[in-house]
This record gives sequence, structure tokens and C-alpha cells, in this order.
Amino acid sequence: MTSSRWPYVTPGIADDLFERLPGIPMSKREVRVLLLSQMRLKSNSVIWDIGAGTGTIPIEVGLLCSQGTVIAVERDEDVANLIRRNCELFGVQNVLVVEGSAPDCLADLHPAPDCIIVEGGRPIKVVLETAWAHLSGGGNIVATAASLDQLYAISEAFAALQVRNVEVVQSSINRLERRGNQQTLAALNPIFVLSGEKLE
Amino acid sequence: MTSSRWPYVTPGIADDLFERLPGIPMSKREVRVLLLSQMRLKSNSVIWDIGAGTGTIPIEVGLLCSQGTVIAVERDEDVANLIRRNCELFGVQNVLVVEGSAPDCLADLHPAPDCIIVEGGRPIKVVLETAWAHLSGGGNIVATAASLDQLYAISEAFAALQVRNVEVVQSSINRLERRGNQQTLAALNPIFVLSGEKLE
Amino acid sequence: MTSSRWPYVTPGIADDLFERLPGIPMSKREVRVLLLSQMRLKSNSVIWDIGAGTGTIPIEVGLLCSQGTVIAVERDEDVANLIRRNCELFGVQNVLVVEGSAPDCLADLHPAPDCIIVEGGRPIKVVLETAWAHLSGGGNIVATAASLDQLYAISEAFAALQVRNVEVVQSSINRLERRGNQQTLAALNPIFVLSGEKLE
Amino acid sequence: MTSSRWPYVTPGIADDLFERLPGIPMSKREVRVLLLSQMRLKSNSVIWDIGAGTGTIPIEVGLLCSQGTVIAVERDEDVANLIRRNCELFGVQNVLVVEGSAPDCLADLHPAPDCIIVEGGRPIKVVLETAWAHLSGGGNIVATAASLDQLYAISEAFAALQVRNVEVVQSSINRLERRGNQQTLAALNPIFVLSGEKLE
Repeated sequence: MTSSRWPYVTPGIADDLFERLPGIPMSKREVRVLLLSQMRLKSNSVIWDIGAGTGTIPIEVGLLCSQGTVIAVERDEDVANLIRRNCELFGVQNVLVVEGSAPDCLADLHPAPDCIIVEGGRPIKVVLETAWAHLSGGGNIVATAASLDQLYAISEAFAALQVRNVEVVQSSINRLERRGNQQTLAALNPIFVLSGEKLE
Repeated sequence: MTSSRWPYVTPGIADDLFERLPGIPMSKREVRVLLLSQMRLKSNSVIWDIGAGTGTIPIEVGLLCSQGTVIAVERDEDVANLIRRNCELFGVQNVLVVEGSAPDCLADLHPAPDCIIVEGGRPIKVVLETAWAHLSGGGNIVATAASLDQLYAISEAFAALQVRNVEVVQSSINRLERRGNQQTLAALNPIFVLSGEKLE
Repeated sequence: MTSSRWPYVTPGIADDLFERLPGIPMSKREVRVLLLSQMRLKSNSVIWDIGAGTGTIPIEVGLLCSQGTVIAVERDEDVANLIRRNCELFGVQNVLVVEGSAPDCLADLHPAPDCIIVEGGRPIKVVLETAWAHLSGGGNIVATAASLDQLYAISEAFAALQVRNVEVVQSSINRLERRGNQQTLAALNPIFVLSGEKLE
Repeated sequence: MTSSRWPYVTPGIADDLFERLPGIPMSKREVRVLLLSQMRLKSNSVIWDIGAGTGTIPIEVGLLCSQGTVIAVERDEDVANLIRRNCELFGVQNVLVVEGSAPDCLADLHPAPDCIIVEGGRPIKVVLETAWAHLSGGGNIVATAASLDQLYAISEAFAALQVRNVEVVQSSINRLERRGNQQTLAALNPIFVLSGEKLE
């Protein structure tokens, strides 16, 4: 499925095409394409996105998985509405935005996911454990860590859950940005992407 | 289009799914998804890949652009055959491998491209100029630089060609790799990705 | 020489020990120690620092080179006074702050330098050429680039001046920083350090 | 103190000035100057270096701390001899090389250290605990981690030991290296540097 706002089959929507709210985190394009590649989605996949923030992942996934379903979990009402507005902007109709707090709200979600991406939620270990219990056999889990505490917690949870084929990638991206009449290399903050699979 | 070897709609084929030849460069997964996102392809795009190496970009693009065409230019016969074997492995049929040296061989290629990606060729400036002359209005050009010389040359060529909306991103990726009984963060060599558009 | 404010023989003064002015750049500790290592100073070296900013390099060098002299060139009066105040704070007495614009003011400086570090000045090529003409045989030159334009310009100038044993290092530093109750890896903007020697 | 082999007051000895053994790790120059800056040494400091490898830190410290003492602990006899040979090469006489396994051998070492740097040893937590018990009040501890396991272990040990003013820095360095007739940006593997202080 393509959108008039992003009429391309390649993911990596330009950051400034999304509506934003001050203080609400957004996965930058370069990190987002890395996350998507770790998610290994099929056109009819069911994806749960926990802590969806601005909604960039739900919208990319909504476009890529035309027969699929995205459930975007976000506890803040304003942020949930932001995701909904971004879905409208891109004409994405297969994203269901659920206002609720992970892990508590996860029990009520269905269908069960083929892929879970965890971009937030606390305590992260309990979120991961609960989400994992819902994940279909053969499914993928992807989680991001901006802090070492999160990195430890996710690593430990993955070990405890016996996540298979774990991959850990740290992405450091520099963008050339115009500042006055100079073009400076500006660093995005580094992010760790952890991913793995559930035994079939 | 999906492949039984990569049955996913998300790009980012695992590196070890490609057949390789010693000494022949390969765009690593994390860099490849960044390149693809800069290419901004439509399902029927025509793509020229100049200096296609192992053929990872042609195969990803072949899968993403089911009604599109990829022309992969590679001057070395063994490498051209490597690309062909990788196409077979992934069941990709919309990639045409052209044995030839850029820029000379570019004059004979058609159809004209909507997107050009330059991963090699010398002198790089002449390759870019010649390729640019063939690029359709509104099309994209993407080039990678591993050295500062290439970075300068591409930057200068982009300026001379009045490429629009130029973006420069430097990707530095660390992967957690098992070495003996330790998991070490190993750095991929950094790469610059330059991209931009041709006036409609 | 050591200072009561930095009573150590190891360079790398903590950033927050310097007085600062809003908007005035400061070489961060991790980058500063890299710059100093490229400067290869002796205890009686004469150093010219062109575009000295906050003055962190003059102060580190003033402490390391107890019989040496630092000439810090800074065109802005307020910034020149900032360097002077930082010298006072650290009890550094072998730094001479010269208010002036490079390259014009360089003709009047003496003694001739054993090492030149260029942290600013425009046009950078002319600054480098003029400074180079003053550099003693066997001396070192070090320059920093935050933008690709500066990187190109310095590279070209180094080539034109036949700088020997050129080294180029790009430093990307992430610091763990407390933000609220999270410790996030925050990226310093990357910087290129170019250095080389003048034939004896 | 300066050496005829490194006649400079600035640390950051060129890597190729050290004798090396295949397979024995060496702290690269850019990382070494960062480590030294975190060690915050005085001219008469006593330093323990646990897992000293090629001996680059003992030699830099030996030169910087002319009235100080370095105890370099290394369990492998060949590596211990390598450190001794490097000391001879640089004319460094204030380094004592102790062949022994940390933490066991630490009980017999004296004088007590003002600074401990841990570059190896297993299990790392016990090494840190034992070393910490010997560290003088007001002293510094510095440890390096190339793997996430080490990073976790050191972080946990630092927390358990109530290390003060903990700093964590990740260094990613790219060097321009000549490969054939191209100059490529080559990445050093990233390293985490953790440091902190013991209450006076």
C-alpha cells in the first residue's frame, strides 16, 4: 500500500512529514529503517507496538503490511491522538491505537502478534515478559534502548525468556545539517536495537 | 514480491543469505536499508545500480519493485555472475546484469532510470555526470563513499550537477559479535550516503 | 606545572571547570586530549592557537609546557577576555592572548611556533597557509573540522602545503548523561582532527 | 620525564612505537589518551594496572609520573616480558611488572594505589572488588569494557562498591587509512571507559 504523502515502496519516511508534539520522542528515519528490517514482517503480519510515541513505526508498518494489522499501545491520550492524526495524514487505516498502560493493557489485545516492538513501557522487563507470552511461535521481538539501564534490562529479559537468535546493533548516525552558512555533521544520539525470535 | 529465501515485505536481508566472493564488497544490512530509504522507489521504478558488487541492492530492489526493472552494471565477469547467482537464489527475475565499465557502457542502457545508485566506478565524477544525464526528471541519485576522496568527489559532482535536496548521512554501526566466549561490540567501517533529486 | 584547580599531570581538564560564555565553542575533554596528543609538545614549545574560543587548549598546554609559551589568537574582545579569565582561574601565566583576526594578525606574532593549532579563522585555507609560513621546520600543525566544507578545505590546504605524515582521525564520543531518572547515551557531535608535520 | 623514543610532554605515543606480540591487545592511542585523562594522576601517584597487555598505559604513565610508581599486573609470562621490553625501549624505569593472576596476586602488592586501571582479569567483579579494597581514599578507578557483558559487570560492581562521580564514555574512533590508492575511514572497535572515585 502506498500513500499520497509517501508514495514509495521503500520505507524511511522523511522525519518532517510526521506531525509532532513537543517532548514526544520520534524514531528518526535512519533508526526506523533499521528497526523495520529487524521486524521481518509479512504483508499480513500482526504487529504490536508498545510505547508507540509519535507513531512513525505504526505508519511505516501500516504501509508495508497492507493486509496486516498494527496495534499501537500508548498510555497518554494526547500522544494516542497524535498517532491517530499521523495515520490520517498518511491515509493508513490498519492501525488500531489503544490507550493504555503496558503491561496491564496487553491482556485485552488481540489478535496475537507475529511481531512485537517495544519502544517504551515500565518496568521494561515486565512489559517484555508479558508481551512475549502473547507472541506467536516463530514471531519476532524488537526493542530499543537509549540508556544503559534499558540495555541491561532488555538483555536480561531476553536471556530469561530464552529469546533465540538475539542480535544487538548500535546505530550511530551523523547527519550533515546546515547551521548558518556552515554544514556541520550533527550526531543523532546512539540507540541500541535488540531483536530475536520465539521458538516455533 | 517476496522470495522463499526472504519471505518478508521489510527490506534488510540477512547478510549471510547472499552468496559471496572473497574480496568483493557487500553493502551490509544496516547500510543497505539506509541506501534503500534514500532511493525512494515506486513499485514500477527503473533503477540503475552502477558498481553493484555482490548484488545486494539489486536483489532488495528487485523484491521491493515487483513491476520495476533493475539494471546492475558490473565490469568484472565473475562479479556479474555472482549477482546473477544471487538473483537465482532469491528468485528475482527483474534484474538485468550488464557486464561493462561505467561510464562508457551507460550510453547503451535503457530504459532511462528513475533512480541511480552509484556504488563504484571511476573516475567517480565522470560516472556521476554521465549517469545524471540519463536520469529522468524528478528522479533520485544515491552514492556511497567509504573514503574522503570519494566523499569530496561526489560532493563536488553533486554541486556541479545542481542536485536538489542533497542529504548527507554518515552511518556508524556497531554489532555485538561473539568472539570466543565474549560478546564484543565490533564496528562496521563508517560509510557516507549522499543523495538528492533531479529537477522535474 | 600543575594548578590548584587541576592538580594533575594528565591533561583532560573537566569541562565544567572552565568559565564559559553562551555561544562560544569549547573543545570537549575527550576531543581535547586527542588534539593535545596530536600536537606532540615539548616542555619549552611555542604554540600558536588560532581561534582559541573558550581557551581550553591554551590552558591545558600552558600547564603541560611549563617553559613554553602559548599565543592564543582570538578576534572577539569578549572571548579574548574569557580566555584571560580562564588563565587566571587555573593560574596559567605563559599564555599570551592576542586580540586579532587571523590571518592578518599573524604577521606580528613572535616567537615563531613549534606547533600551530587552528580551531577557527576564515578563510581557513589562507589562515593555514599564512600560519604554515611561520611554523618552524620539524613543527606540527593540527586543525579541527566540524563541517565537511572545513574538512575539504583543510585537506586541500594540507596537500598544497605538502604537510608530511598527515593523519586524519574522526572522533565520535558518547557520554552517559543523567536525564531525569534515566541515564542516556548522549552523542557529542563528531569532529575531524587533521595533523601533520613540516619538513625539518 | 621524557624519553628519547617519545620526547614529548603530551601523552599519546604513536601505536607503532610499541613492540607488539600477535594476539595481545593494545590500547590504541586515541583510547589511551582518554583513559589517561580519566586517571587524573599526580607526578608521584602510585598506579596499579591490572591486565596491562602490551604495556602502553604503564609506559605513558611512567613518563608522565616521574616520581610515581606503576605496578603492571600481567599473568602471562610472555606478555609480562613484552611490557618489560617496551619499558626498556622507552627508558622507563618506574614500572614494576608483576607476573600474577588478579585478584589473587593483588594482596601482595604494595605500595597501595592512588589509581587503579583494570584492563582485564576474571571474574571482573571480583577483580574490581579486591582492587577497590586496596585503593587509597580519594583515589580513582578506571576500567574498560569492549563487550556488553563487561560493561554490565563493571557497572554493577561500581554500584555495589559505591564508586563516586561515576563517568561512562563510549569512544568510537575512525582513522583515515591508506588501502591501495584509496584512503578509507576505518573504524576502531568502540570501547566503553568507566571511571570514578573512592570517598576520601
